[in-house]
Amino acid sequence: MSIAETYQQVIAWSKDVSLAGAIFEMLDWDLQVNLPKKGFARRSDQLAWIQGQRHRRLTDKEMVAKVYELADRMNELDADAQVNVREWKRALDRATKAPVELVEEIARHNSLTQGVWIEARKNSDFAKFAPYLEKTVDLQKQLASAWGFARPYDGLLDANEPFATEASIRALLDDLKARLVPFLHRIFGAKQYDASPIVGRNFPVDKQREFGLAVIGKLGFDFDGGRQDVSAHPFCTGTKGDVRITSRFFADDPRPSLFGMIHEAGHAMYEQGLPDDRLGTPLGESVSLGVHESQSRFWENIVGRSIPMWRYFYPEIKKAFPAALGDVPLETFHRCVNVVAPSLIRVEADEATYNLHIILRFEIERALLAGELRVADLPAAWNAKMKEYLDIAVPNDAEGVLQDVHWSLGSLGYFPTYTIGTLYGAQLWDKIRADMPGLEALIARGEFAPLLEWLRQHIHRYGKRYGGDELIERATGKKPTAEPFMNYLREKFGPLYGV
Amino acid sequence: MSIAETYQQVIAWSKDVSLAGAIFEMLDWDLQVNLPKKGFARRSDQLAWIQGQRHRRLTDKEMVAKVYELADRMNELDADAQVNVREWKRALDRATKAPVELVEEIARHNSLTQGVWIEARKNSDFAKFAPYLEKTVDLQKQLASAWGFARPYDGLLDANEPFATEASIRALLDDLKARLVPFLHRIFGAKQYDASPIVGRNFPVDKQREFGLAVIGKLGFDFDGGRQDVSAHPFCTGTKGDVRITSRFFADDPRPSLFGMIHEAGHAMYEQGLPDDRLGTPLGESVSLGVHESQSRFWENIVGRSIPMWRYFYPEIKKAFPAALGDVPLETFHRCVNVVAPSLIRVEADEATYNLHIILRFEIERALLAGELRVADLPAAWNAKMKEYLDIAVPNDAEGVLQDVHWSLGSLGYFPTYTIGTLYGAQLWDKIRADMPGLEALIARGEFAPLLEWLRQHIHRYGKRYGGDELIERATGKKPTAEPFMNYLREKFGPLYGV
Repeated sequence: MSIAETYQQVIAWSKDVSLAGAIFEMLDWDLQVNLPKKGFARRSDQLAWIQGQRHRRLTDKEMVAKVYELADRMNELDADAQVNVREWKRALDRATKAPVELVEEIARHNSLTQGVWIEARKNSDFAKFAPYLEKTVDLQKQLASAWGFARPYDGLLDANEPFATEASIRALLDDLKARLVPFLHRIFGAKQYDASPIVGRNFPVDKQREFGLAVIGKLGFDFDGGRQDVSAHPFCTGTKGDVRITSRFFADDPRPSLFGMIHEAGHAMYEQGLPDDRLGTPLGESVSLGVHESQSRFWENIVGRSIPMWRYFYPEIKKAFPAALGDVPLETFHRCVNVVAPSLIRVEADEATYNLHIILRFEIERALLAGELRVADLPAAWNAKMKEYLDIAVPNDAEGVLQDVHWSLGSLGYFPTYTIGTLYGAQLWDKIRADMPGLEALIARGEFAPLLEWLRQHIHRYGKRYGGDELIERATGKKPTAEPFMNYLREKFGPLYGV
Repeated sequence: MSIAETYQQVIAWSKDVSLAGAIFEMLDWDLQVNLPKKGFARRSDQLAWIQGQRHRRLTDKEMVAKVYELADRMNELDADAQVNVREWKRALDRATKAPVELVEEIARHNSLTQGVWIEARKNSDFAKFAPYLEKTVDLQKQLASAWGFARPYDGLLDANEPFATEASIRALLDDLKARLVPFLHRIFGAKQYDASPIVGRNFPVDKQREFGLAVIGKLGFDFDGGRQDVSAHPFCTGTKGDVRITSRFFADDPRPSLFGMIHEAGHAMYEQGLPDDRLGTPLGESVSLGVHESQSRFWENIVGRSIPMWRYFYPEIKKAFPAALGDVPLETFHRCVNVVAPSLIRVEADEATYNLHIILRFEIERALLAGELRVADLPAAWNAKMKEYLDIAVPNDAEGVLQDVHWSLGSLGYFPTYTIGTLYGAQLWDKIRADMPGLEALIARGEFAPLLEWLRQHIHRYGKRYGGDELIERATGKKPTAEPFMNYLREKFGPLYGV
């Protein structure tokens, strides 16, 4: 068989594996959006079944051998094929190198641990969770080692953010922390304002939905290739042609639905911008969680909470909620969607303090994996960092170290991707403004197409061709740093807080 | 391996095949209810993929051998296991006996033919469709013969209505026709009325939905184990725990949504009544299309269009549509939902004339398969029967012989199940009334639980234990005949039309 024939066979296999993945996503979307309560048991059987089918296909011995054969003959392949083979091999390394017994033990342990975490959080009982987390750390170390990583945290990071390493992330986040903590402390010391001019008023949910849909449609979400629904936790799923986002609504506060929809639409527009003709292969897939987050946070925060955005949309949102916003000036509304304040809970944090929640988690994960921190000492470490970075006292572990689901699912090395994405997004913004001098005027006129087109050309169309750092460096001409994000924060919040 | 072990392995296989089927149904439901238009290409790949996986699992050589082994040792099994083995064997006979080349040719031909039919119907051009239908008849004959049926139509009927034969169906339908045609001709000759007192008024769609949901909830549809959505064509799908129905709405006529919802809820309540502990095996599956239709038409027509039903619900529907129904007396409304009149199109026909549309199709299919009618003579035969049975002239083939999708999909032997279900339903009604003398008073008080419970006990809980005729005979003490249905029609429409 010629190498071209082998490659075509592997392409067909890749599309097959991808189809099974898409079916899983669809069933899971339906579970979160539609499923009646008596349907859960059988749906979980369906999810397990399709996941099993996908795994069986992914690790089909004959196809695995073909992928490794292609990897051995990499120099005979063209540039596109090299990318696909590189990524297939990375996926197979991960799927086949760990012993089945370890994988099964991790699955059992995580499933058990999630139940324990729910109870522990309810009772703010870290001691109950601690032995499980200890075992999680141990199992995840074994996993990263089986994958062939000398430093366990490198392996776990790489699973979420390809080619990222502990050293590369640490350099970025240390730099960010050194700049961000003093800046935020200046804000915390300045005159405060809050969102009380709008929160607590009446924002009918159907109008929120209607307005939100109009906004994301204007930004560039393609409703012929996607849809929006309601679920308990907002998310984005699916692939080009059928990308679905979900939202949740609160009648006394339009911000969660509105910025949630813009955030998820940011994820969705990335998926919608992937190249059609590569669907089902790595060149047709998004790079990483970090690059995904660079898109969602870009649209949510940098664009979505900007003054030009609201110069355009404020008359529209006033029409949607005349009673609630009739007496609220644009500048007041803009402040209400740009409050910076210390808070206990990561998912409720604003775009500036959010990153300190992440840095804290990164530092703790890193130290746990390196054996520099014992699980038993985790609450004390957590609370000390909350005090140091955010100047806030943690009243109990439920609102502290037990707040997030990630560790209970065995997900270590995931948190940093949120901040990586934030930094990437700000660096893109810098470059886009340099490339398009009239950009803010365009936005203030409701013209978002050139902005989306820039992202399509410089980010979306590449699929998995480059890792996150390389993609951002190619798009902006500079290696990723914290500098553009700090400039963005200073430019935006300096005037708002007079600091 | 012991026979008990073999049986347990086959049970696991059966559940696996059923899971794959449920995933297919879910993806297809989503296609009809949710899918954005750019998602269709990839969804059809997903449907083909899961169908392929299901077929591969169904026809797994090792499992097929085990099923046939169990079938050979039937007398060593208990009664429940005997039913499952009988049904597994029937399914495998069908799935494995036809040569792959024939199955593939049929798939290709049907897919081609559907496109031709769409065009032919649009242009009312039967000649264009005819050669394709000729081939369909030929291929379906080959299929039935490969399955081992001496009479081809027996094989095709059996695929839709297990254990039904051309002779058994013909006896039932000939008997029905002999009684129904003269009765309907008396109605056609009597003073006519129509639905104009309500149709054309304003019935807001959201109110229709709200009222329809309240009605089916009251009848016994379990919303914890099912849901209702909107689609272009109403249908019911899913299995116990997650049974989904769909509806369509017209703002000037509440009848399609209302009776459509009751009809689909009838299907759904059957699925919801199947035994939990048999899920994924034949004992947890519905018997047949005919038995399904006996439930849907029972609730839609016999209960749903009855006077006792509206004695209870009429005050409620007047509250939902005060402007449209405020001046309409109950008796007028009842007539409006019980108009009997000849019509060209089967899917728009009333419950009485509907069965003549079916008898006509049955007679034509039967004659085609027996070689007694040439495809070229089909329009003439169709139009003659329409004249004879319904006293109606067919203006063109689009509204005549080309109106239904079934034949274009290769579905021969499907139509009769609609009328079988109608007859079964009326025979059940007879017996239920005998068992529950106060039934109509219960219904008029909105108490539907005893009625549903009767169906649960006498129909739903048996799964596929008996074929349709046997199930009805066991439930009613009599072999199925047309008599109860004719009595029902006379009792209901005699007074309405004064005949």
